[in-house]
Amino acid sequence: MSKRKIINDAVHGFITIPNDFLYEVLQHRFVQRLNRVKQLGVSSMVYPSATHTRFQHSLGAMFLTSEAVKELRLKGHDITDDEADAVMAAILLHDIGHCPYSHVLENTIIKGVSHEQITDLLLRKMSDEMGGRLDMAIAIFRNKYHKKFLHQLVSSQLDMDRFDYLMRDSFFTGVVEGTIGAARIIKMLDIDDDRLVVEQKGMLSVENYLIARRFMYWQVYFHKTSIAAEIMLKNILKRAKSLVAGGENLFASPSLLYFLRNNIDQTNFATNDDSIGHFVNIDDSDIVSAIKVWASHHDTVLALLSDDFTNRQLFKTLLIKEPADKEQLIGMAADKERDIVATLGIDPADGHYFSTYQSVKNDTYNFKNNKIMVRHSDGTVSDLSASSSILTPESLHHDARRNYLCYYKIKY
Amino acid sequence: MSKRKIINDAVHGFITIPNDFLYEVLQHRFVQRLNRVKQLGVSSMVYPSATHTRFQHSLGAMFLTSEAVKELRLKGHDITDDEADAVMAAILLHDIGHCPYSHVLENTIIKGVSHEQITDLLLRKMSDEMGGRLDMAIAIFRNKYHKKFLHQLVSSQLDMDRFDYLMRDSFFTGVVEGTIGAARIIKMLDIDDDRLVVEQKGMLSVENYLIARRFMYWQVYFHKTSIAAEIMLKNILKRAKSLVAGGENLFASPSLLYFLRNNIDQTNFATNDDSIGHFVNIDDSDIVSAIKVWASHHDTVLALLSDDFTNRQLFKTLLIKEPADKEQLIGMAADKERDIVATLGIDPADGHYFSTYQSVKNDTYNFKNNKIMVRHSDGTVSDLSASSSILTPESLHHDARRNYLCYYKIKY
Amino acid sequence: MSKRKIINDAVHGFITIPNDFLYEVLQHRFVQRLNRVKQLGVSSMVYPSATHTRFQHSLGAMFLTSEAVKELRLKGHDITDDEADAVMAAILLHDIGHCPYSHVLENTIIKGVSHEQITDLLLRKMSDEMGGRLDMAIAIFRNKYHKKFLHQLVSSQLDMDRFDYLMRDSFFTGVVEGTIGAARIIKMLDIDDDRLVVEQKGMLSVENYLIARRFMYWQVYFHKTSIAAEIMLKNILKRAKSLVAGGENLFASPSLLYFLRNNIDQTNFATNDDSIGHFVNIDDSDIVSAIKVWASHHDTVLALLSDDFTNRQLFKTLLIKEPADKEQLIGMAADKERDIVATLGIDPADGHYFSTYQSVKNDTYNFKNNKIMVRHSDGTVSDLSASSSILTPESLHHDARRNYLCYYKIKY
Amino acid sequence: MSKRKIINDAVHGFITIPNDFLYEVLQHRFVQRLNRVKQLGVSSMVYPSATHTRFQHSLGAMFLTSEAVKELRLKGHDITDDEADAVMAAILLHDIGHCPYSHVLENTIIKGVSHEQITDLLLRKMSDEMGGRLDMAIAIFRNKYHKKFLHQLVSSQLDMDRFDYLMRDSFFTGVVEGTIGAARIIKMLDIDDDRLVVEQKGMLSVENYLIARRFMYWQVYFHKTSIAAEIMLKNILKRAKSLVAGGENLFASPSLLYFLRNNIDQTNFATNDDSIGHFVNIDDSDIVSAIKVWASHHDTVLALLSDDFTNRQLFKTLLIKEPADKEQLIGMAADKERDIVATLGIDPADGHYFSTYQSVKNDTYNFKNNKIMVRHSDGTVSDLSASSSILTPESLHHDARRNYLCYYKIKY
Repeated sequence: MSKRKIINDAVHGFITIPNDFLYEVLQHRFVQRLNRVKQLGVSSMVYPSATHTRFQHSLGAMFLTSEAVKELRLKGHDITDDEADAVMAAILLHDIGHCPYSHVLENTIIKGVSHEQITDLLLRKMSDEMGGRLDMAIAIFRNKYHKKFLHQLVSSQLDMDRFDYLMRDSFFTGVVEGTIGAARIIKMLDIDDDRLVVEQKGMLSVENYLIARRFMYWQVYFHKTSIAAEIMLKNILKRAKSLVAGGENLFASPSLLYFLRNNIDQTNFATNDDSIGHFVNIDDSDIVSAIKVWASHHDTVLALLSDDFTNRQLFKTLLIKEPADKEQLIGMAADKERDIVATLGIDPADGHYFSTYQSVKNDTYNFKNNKIMVRHSDGTVSDLSASSSILTPESLHHDARRNYLCYYKIKY
Repeated sequence: MSKRKIINDAVHGFITIPNDFLYEVLQHRFVQRLNRVKQLGVSSMVYPSATHTRFQHSLGAMFLTSEAVKELRLKGHDITDDEADAVMAAILLHDIGHCPYSHVLENTIIKGVSHEQITDLLLRKMSDEMGGRLDMAIAIFRNKYHKKFLHQLVSSQLDMDRFDYLMRDSFFTGVVEGTIGAARIIKMLDIDDDRLVVEQKGMLSVENYLIARRFMYWQVYFHKTSIAAEIMLKNILKRAKSLVAGGENLFASPSLLYFLRNNIDQTNFATNDDSIGHFVNIDDSDIVSAIKVWASHHDTVLALLSDDFTNRQLFKTLLIKEPADKEQLIGMAADKERDIVATLGIDPADGHYFSTYQSVKNDTYNFKNNKIMVRHSDGTVSDLSASSSILTPESLHHDARRNYLCYYKIKY
Repeated sequence: MSKRKIINDAVHGFITIPNDFLYEVLQHRFVQRLNRVKQLGVSSMVYPSATHTRFQHSLGAMFLTSEAVKELRLKGHDITDDEADAVMAAILLHDIGHCPYSHVLENTIIKGVSHEQITDLLLRKMSDEMGGRLDMAIAIFRNKYHKKFLHQLVSSQLDMDRFDYLMRDSFFTGVVEGTIGAARIIKMLDIDDDRLVVEQKGMLSVENYLIARRFMYWQVYFHKTSIAAEIMLKNILKRAKSLVAGGENLFASPSLLYFLRNNIDQTNFATNDDSIGHFVNIDDSDIVSAIKVWASHHDTVLALLSDDFTNRQLFKTLLIKEPADKEQLIGMAADKERDIVATLGIDPADGHYFSTYQSVKNDTYNFKNNKIMVRHSDGTVSDLSASSSILTPESLHHDARRNYLCYYKIKY
Repeated sequence: MSKRKIINDAVHGFITIPNDFLYEVLQHRFVQRLNRVKQLGVSSMVYPSATHTRFQHSLGAMFLTSEAVKELRLKGHDITDDEADAVMAAILLHDIGHCPYSHVLENTIIKGVSHEQITDLLLRKMSDEMGGRLDMAIAIFRNKYHKKFLHQLVSSQLDMDRFDYLMRDSFFTGVVEGTIGAARIIKMLDIDDDRLVVEQKGMLSVENYLIARRFMYWQVYFHKTSIAAEIMLKNILKRAKSLVAGGENLFASPSLLYFLRNNIDQTNFATNDDSIGHFVNIDDSDIVSAIKVWASHHDTVLALLSDDFTNRQLFKTLLIKEPADKEQLIGMAADKERDIVATLGIDPADGHYFSTYQSVKNDTYNFKNNKIMVRHSDGTVSDLSASSSILTPESLHHDARRNYLCYYKIKY
């Protein structure tokens, strides 16, 4: 390696980039873009310190993967240097298909294309540029590589992605309840029949990690004020797109404009280089910068939402716990809508921009797919939920869903 | 106050002793003794950094209590300065009745007297010395004070004792899974009908705290190697006591000797000043120092156990999960005993010193007494378990008990 | 207060907004804008976790100020509730005049107007909006308030601004050497003759803080790669401004365009509401978003610099320690320039955009103004440097300055 | 290895014991004894959380050594597996010759034998027991091994001993100013001409580490209350020894009694197996436990000092900064002594037990021996002080010494 690179990370301390290949991946413009995409999108409106980026997270996940590889090798499992590089590249790249503000944009300006699909396209493009040197990483990413456990390090209920994001999100939000024992779980990892397993001694740490993750979902990811901010952002982009479709002129960077003007779906992406080109040009700054300008637009709906979003005058949110009557929720939202339309003097057809309900689901543990496997002291392997007392389908079912009623707060 | 005292604490940072009264309490020899009693007894044989003391813990619990008082006052509840001092003194003193190695000694050299009873005696003595200035603290401690919530800060399922010990034990063992959101829970405390309640927004933090506590029980307090060390310590003291009863001469500090020579029960303690006088003279050092000397005693049983304990040659422990057949356990212990007796060439009647089984119970949440009360957004108050999905009697029942078979490891 | 606000902060834990007045200040759009301005500008290109904002920092500085006020009151100094609110508002607002990328923009698109002057203008505007309720805060900010020590909490060599930024920058960069004992220094603060003084017992902590600050300057603020990124950013904006002056069309948000098109100086700002209006509209996103677009501009200079900046292809930097020959540095820069011009085939007159030198100065301690005063055990007060052995003019002089030669790295 | 051992450490997280050899060393009774010897002796009377032990510290130093070995190997230096094991064993064992309360006992009950000499004797004994397997470790320890840089990892101004003790003492006392960038310095280590050198980029971290160390000396190690406690402890042991010499009967464990009864010097140790045997039997508990008993002794001097020490009624300390007049100090101490003798009604010949002065020296950096070598970017190597501006002989000289007057506080 020309020169060993060491990067300071607030969460893991010093992270060493082990070789030139991984440094080249890290320096690629697709990865560098993640420096401009916040990991938690609008959450910094609730947790002001949570401005950390997908770049840091990817780097941290690479670090944890290198720790896991070290551990598995110590336990006698064969992982070649190429495989180690490939799995580290795979995790470093696992987020490159993310839009800024992730699922908000995926559901508005980019429709019907998931970030997984985009990641896939971008990976192929990168590997081509790099003379095929990412092919093994891609195979691992797509779970086409014959050593299946490598894929599980990148994507499963015990993957290094989740470990890093929980550690990082807990650290940057200041929500200590999200603390997890990732180091202990990694020490307890092993491979059985080509699957990742956790030694029984680590089972409590796994339970603790799943409970911490559940906590972070309710306290941070699904915080009611974040939900409100996300709904506002979604409605702003919907309105913008509809205005552009109606021939209105809107300020936006060329790449953002491309997605406002065109209805981009999976086919476009796969066949049209422009889509990809513009996609990798967009980051948080395009959205934030445009919305500030839209706050002065002559369209009341767009201007009001944009100004309020920018200045943190967020929708009010009511939490409605399960079981909730869907009809009743729709009714409540409609009531609010009527009041708001009257107060703001807007077209009743636009009322839906100001009142809505949203339902979220917190999957603490997926009992069906890709289960977490525990190896007992007698050598047998079984699903976590077969041994855990607190993570049973019953115990986790009843508070898995929450409903939020979100609406514009009328200022008198 | 003559001079404000500020003490550096590794867990909470700077702790200010708010006035001369509390400084006098802190400086009392009964409290200073706790500097010589490790919080976790033998656990530092498993977690070498866990050498923290009951003194630090009491100081930390006082700090958290002052935070809780501040919070409750901000919410409009009347707590006079005298009450604040009294509740802080009460928590500062809550551990003064603890023997070194706590329940091990409570069950060997001091029989039938609990640390609560001793604390009670000592508190009375201290208050007499101090001209009755601890009377309100004692009333709070005994739950005789009319504001019942003050007692709950000192002793309940949400008390400041537990908050501090979890934070501290997690910090010093290095077991991050024990991290709890004490600061958040304290912010969410309120009083309803003279009881402590937690606002619903804090319920997840309470669940998280109970799960963290359950984790610490299995991973630290009931760690199988700690269980082994405790059993050895218990057997050493039993043997020492039986040798002294048989007229043997044993090295020990005069105060330790007093308890080895006499059968001290509750009546002694209450009526005999010597008992109390010797009790407050004993700390970890008397035990550790004597056992080292006993390692060279001519009694094989005492010498063997003492030497192995001192040099960390601990019993082997087998974990037997529930449901366990008690008869079978007794049988297994007896089998081991026979082998050991034969190998060591000791009197079969002494075999029980080298093989035993022990059963422990992990009460994550007590559903019956002193429940944790949650106040919902509609103002109603209900028991935590009525709202929690993961803390149900069912979910917590089946792994609440573990059985350990502990026995001398024959060296060949 | 309608509802007490508590904000989670990664550095200080829970921060309570003490009343409605301060919450109103915090929610003001001038303060909310700081959520979109990174504290360390381009430093996150070197320290990827350092994406924290001026908003968090202002909030943290307010918290430390509240701690200092509490301490000074405990020591018997009279600080009225209004004064406490005012000094907390003053520190909360101390950064509102900052451009994104601070001094880079202050020296390019906004010339001759310092952030202090802009803060002053914005404060006046805010206080007018709020019916004069910020007047006392402004007086403290401008050091016009009769209790001079309050100004020192906001701005001096021991102010809460510096304490928070060091703690925060150290925390988010992961550079532990920047750790300071702010809590101890605050405990040691007192007032003597209307000046802040530190008790002698705290002097070592102050020395330690100044050495940590010196460390952060060299390791973070003046990191050679950050210097390179700043020079590139400065040259990009200079080029953009010159192109706009030449009639070129450039993509930019309207507010950024305003500053590219007009030569705004102090007079404009004071007399023209547009300037202020556009100023408070600009944040990091306008700069980042525009530069990405400029990467495809037909002007080679602008495009090259913008593309490289966006994709972290930064200038190479040579550190030249003192004493350095200025003529020699200019010569070295010119040599590099010639090579680059030839390689890129650009107009030699534009060579200066690609090679320059920069000199920086690290003022560990200012011996002349606003000295740090230490109160000795005998009650006398003297300047820190009179007692410190390591912070003498001699010791700090010789490495106070560094020179960097920065130039475009030719890719072959 | 039979089973890989992983130990939780509060400072470094998980520490892996790399193989059976090092586990055997760790389990040796000489090393296990360090679990019963506090790293900072009496300091926990000032910093109550600082109860950490020499065992933890040795383990932590071993961990840092393994990190340094990893780093040096990455830089291409040849360190065989045997050498790595030996240097790790050497650092694990570097403290086994320490008495409890270290230099206090070295200067009282064990005279004229340094802990280095005892370590040497114990190492020889251990290596014999282990069939010579510690011989390379001993050679490194004694700087007799041909690769001199290995010794420097164990003992020099940049050794892993200092790095761990600073990190650990800072962590457990809660004194954050002691934070050092050990990880960064280790990354910057290299070898030049068989010596450890630090790359110039790490020089500021080294300066920061030396300043942090200087801070810890004044704030913790030489804290005036610790000095008082140490003087009391020293005087208690002196008095005990003199009473035993005079034929008095004193309670003490047999091993402690051995040292009270006999005048043990270097020759005894080297030739008499009893001395070594008793030495390794003594730890903190023997001292603490005996002193509590002595508090009731009929000798007033012993009883008074012992009772006060046990109950933290410590001597008063006056700090007298340099330049101090030695004669004046002696005079001041004599004045105090006279008052105390009169008040306590003791023999004037015993007055010296209650009043004394002590002078301490804080060597921030030793400019003469074993200098820290810095390698500059041009490849030249020079002493740290040649490049550092703040660590000059001048800057460090004038506060290197402090004098304390310590005396019994008369209670009225």
